[in-house]
Amino acid sequence: MLRGLTGAGLGKLEDERQLIELAGKFGFQAVDLDARALIEKYGEVEAKRLLEKHGVVVGSIGLPVEWRGTEEQFANGLKELSKSAEAAQKLGCTRCCTYILPSTDLKAAHFMALATRRLRECAVILGEYGLSLGLEFVGPHHLRTAWKNPFIWTMQETLDWIDAIGEPNVGLLLDAYHWYTNGMDASAIEALRKDQIVHVHINDAPDVPVEEALDNGRLYPGEGVIDLASFLKALQEIGYEGPVAQEILAAAPPQGTPEELAQRSKNGFDLVFEAAGLSVRA
Amino acid sequence: MLRGLTGAGLGKLEDERQLIELAGKFGFQAVDLDARALIEKYGEVEAKRLLEKHGVVVGSIGLPVEWRGTEEQFANGLKELSKSAEAAQKLGCTRCCTYILPSTDLKAAHFMALATRRLRECAVILGEYGLSLGLEFVGPHHLRTAWKNPFIWTMQETLDWIDAIGEPNVGLLLDAYHWYTNGMDASAIEALRKDQIVHVHINDAPDVPVEEALDNGRLYPGEGVIDLASFLKALQEIGYEGPVAQEILAAAPPQGTPEELAQRSKNGFDLVFEAAGLSVRA
Amino acid sequence: MLRGLTGAGLGKLEDERQLIELAGKFGFQAVDLDARALIEKYGEVEAKRLLEKHGVVVGSIGLPVEWRGTEEQFANGLKELSKSAEAAQKLGCTRCCTYILPSTDLKAAHFMALATRRLRECAVILGEYGLSLGLEFVGPHHLRTAWKNPFIWTMQETLDWIDAIGEPNVGLLLDAYHWYTNGMDASAIEALRKDQIVHVHINDAPDVPVEEALDNGRLYPGEGVIDLASFLKALQEIGYEGPVAQEILAAAPPQGTPEELAQRSKNGFDLVFEAAGLSVRA
Amino acid sequence: MLRGLTGAGLGKLEDERQLIELAGKFGFQAVDLDARALIEKYGEVEAKRLLEKHGVVVGSIGLPVEWRGTEEQFANGLKELSKSAEAAQKLGCTRCCTYILPSTDLKAAHFMALATRRLRECAVILGEYGLSLGLEFVGPHHLRTAWKNPFIWTMQETLDWIDAIGEPNVGLLLDAYHWYTNGMDASAIEALRKDQIVHVHINDAPDVPVEEALDNGRLYPGEGVIDLASFLKALQEIGYEGPVAQEILAAAPPQGTPEELAQRSKNGFDLVFEAAGLSVRA
Repeated sequence: MLRGLTGAGLGKLEDERQLIELAGKFGFQAVDLDARALIEKYGEVEAKRLLEKHGVVVGSIGLPVEWRGTEEQFANGLKELSKSAEAAQKLGCTRCCTYILPSTDLKAAHFMALATRRLRECAVILGEYGLSLGLEFVGPHHLRTAWKNPFIWTMQETLDWIDAIGEPNVGLLLDAYHWYTNGMDASAIEALRKDQIVHVHINDAPDVPVEEALDNGRLYPGEGVIDLASFLKALQEIGYEGPVAQEILAAAPPQGTPEELAQRSKNGFDLVFEAAGLSVRA
Repeated sequence: MLRGLTGAGLGKLEDERQLIELAGKFGFQAVDLDARALIEKYGEVEAKRLLEKHGVVVGSIGLPVEWRGTEEQFANGLKELSKSAEAAQKLGCTRCCTYILPSTDLKAAHFMALATRRLRECAVILGEYGLSLGLEFVGPHHLRTAWKNPFIWTMQETLDWIDAIGEPNVGLLLDAYHWYTNGMDASAIEALRKDQIVHVHINDAPDVPVEEALDNGRLYPGEGVIDLASFLKALQEIGYEGPVAQEILAAAPPQGTPEELAQRSKNGFDLVFEAAGLSVRA
Repeated sequence: MLRGLTGAGLGKLEDERQLIELAGKFGFQAVDLDARALIEKYGEVEAKRLLEKHGVVVGSIGLPVEWRGTEEQFANGLKELSKSAEAAQKLGCTRCCTYILPSTDLKAAHFMALATRRLRECAVILGEYGLSLGLEFVGPHHLRTAWKNPFIWTMQETLDWIDAIGEPNVGLLLDAYHWYTNGMDASAIEALRKDQIVHVHINDAPDVPVEEALDNGRLYPGEGVIDLASFLKALQEIGYEGPVAQEILAAAPPQGTPEELAQRSKNGFDLVFEAAGLSVRA
Repeated sequence: MLRGLTGAGLGKLEDERQLIELAGKFGFQAVDLDARALIEKYGEVEAKRLLEKHGVVVGSIGLPVEWRGTEEQFANGLKELSKSAEAAQKLGCTRCCTYILPSTDLKAAHFMALATRRLRECAVILGEYGLSLGLEFVGPHHLRTAWKNPFIWTMQETLDWIDAIGEPNVGLLLDAYHWYTNGMDASAIEALRKDQIVHVHINDAPDVPVEEALDNGRLYPGEGVIDLASFLKALQEIGYEGPVAQEILAAAPPQGTPEELAQRSKNGFDLVFEAAGLSVRA
């Protein structure tokens, strides 16, 4: 597994260059970022040099297409997808991820039909550029009723949706917070094949009843109550070798400089990876 | 268009042979029946001879797979689908239809994902035997709340679902009752391409508020308030040439012998086809 | 059917505006052109106004993706496809076409596998913008051995390929020259459903043995030996209502001004449409 | 990896029961057999008991559908596929395999189109019962010209074909003999993801020029010149954990009783697994 960073949890960064530098400095091996923006700012050659210099790879890009809104919004986004995918490919990245809100103001079944076609279209385009599409189920209970109608939030529902989409390059983004808020344990991960997992997020939850854990109330790995040792051990058990990226969504910006927060993140990773019996680079 | 009969609306028939005979006798050109059962009972040669003798073709078979229940039920049904499809093909039938209940006890989005994959699998198998799959949206308002969660019931939702299924041989079964209970008019049909329609049902509705029209409270064509002339004219307008089959679902069995009921059906067809300006065989 | 023009057969045109003007002037109802280029040059509003003013629609755009070369070429082209498709959609065009060379220097089976995936990807993107993809089989005998290995050139092979691609919005581009050089007659067209045809080309062949008819030796409709009356009647018979566009590929530029050549084209269309018993706008 | 046996290389066996018993006796962990036939002969309960008693699992079933012939043959075979797949599922088997002849009497590109659709249909049905479809490329040079037209025989061509088929549950059957006769080395395997491999065959080649190695001239593992240690090490390297099944195709039946031949097979496996540094059960 590769230790990974996203921008979430590091405070206000100047740009993606800083994310790469912090990752390198604190022993992370992967960063999730906007590959196209990086190349547009620095050029392909310099972007690659930056990554190489700091010893990090691009773990994942976000899906730059709004598939939850109108058909027009979707078609507009789709026009740009090839370019984002090509930029990711140039930087050696093979993952593109999006998340699934667990409720919707639309009629749930109709929206599922629309979204199935839309994500299938995205997957086909991503596939041309060697990228997989990771779908993140979202567990916090309050979001299940944040919009009018329940959508989907469990891993099994997401796996069934992946089957419905029907493209070979679609899989899960498995996030420790959603694993926890869905009340899952290690056995649920052990039942997966590693090729069903496109990407992994890690973060921690406060010591409140699980039903009250808020989506934007996340803690740094090791600072909360999630059994991250079991989470990581199960991933190791099934042979997962991709990135495990921290994503600390919080209501208020975290205190401290990016440097301090990256150090804090490193400490968290050290703690939970050690608890899982994993070496620095498992 | 071909005038068609189903077993619904003719009382208790002895078997499919009688349906074929009545269709022929009263000027119908198509029947919807179980092709496999017909061949199993009479043999392929005699089944074809029967159809030919009475001048009717097989308009459609029903989808013999339970796709709304458990995966086990589905997998069990799927085992038999090839044989039913092959039987239909032997009799020259190119349509296989199923209906969509507008509500479900399952979580709607999850069920949509499951059903998308299942119907896709059915469509792939049917395609091998030259059959299209027609999906019938179901309009009566009371069914929208008959089960816990709303599913889909409009034509547009169904078209979007057909896109999600993504196979070339899937289209609509357009039923006059569901067209009426969805509050649609001719323009909705005129906006379709004829190849989006796999099959058509015709029947009539009682003079009650449309919200109170019950799914099993249907009348014979021409005996109710649906503007069937507009319905047929719109189908003619877009070049639809397939069967238009009567399907009279009723709470209690209709009064009269099958012979009398077939005569009554013929009268209804004469009435509405004439009102639409269509000759006997449009 | 709509009478259509392409740039092929009108000599050297100034730009797409001239094609539209000539089409309008000589009673054509459709033009095949590069919708994106038209919009880039004139803006969407003016492009629409031009079409409207001259009473023509955009029949088809060409597929702007090189799917016969390297994967890199393909991926590069694919990046632009959404924009071309969106431009076509803005102008109300629903067709995008490409042709199939009947031989290849690549290993034929391997190339077929590559091309199947590539055209599937194109079809998925085109579908998002409401476009169908028309595949033109190419009949002239000399091209069957122009490259090392035979590929495909018959209508049935192309239909089987369309099934392999497996997307709902893929169909035939039926060209009279390829119909003729494949030795087909009206029955082959009558066996099609109209929704299997995305687009039609019309042109004529010189009075030489069919094996010697060259791909770039085409004549204007009515000036050669192809039984275009039967061709058009068969299309009419199955209800085809799309464009029938002239495409005169020739080794040397035709003699005469564009105006004269458009007049000559009109005369040819009048001749063969009349011979087929079709009014000006069938 | 699981050591596996097929019937090929054990002489004339009485039935599948004997294959299971020999596998168990000589330390094999998997057998390739006809799951449906086994269940039909012994019943599901006894079939499971037999496997369990002898400590073996069913590694793979053969695809019971003739996809290389006429459409009628294919459609006939497809009717039976669900039942074979269900039988495999009942016995816990997740693999179904078929091989690709490297030349064909049909036009290669057309056959590729037909076969793409057909194998896609098979994959969809197999997927319903939890099975993957493994495609075996076939390397021996003499078969590349055994029929009129070259088809495909390399791993890359097969991977490209798998992409064209486009279903998530299709992958490679990697056979050491075809790896060798294609002139491949360990790096080709190391470039694969383990989830691209559905199944593995192992056997050896005589000390003749590679171009002269005949498809039915195979030797037992360790008795020939293929570098099976590198082959196995590369599979281990990428984390392959499925069966590696012996398949000794030979012109004449091997000498010795099934018992003796199974012992000989065991010796061969011991030899090459040890050479690869793998324990009995890697």
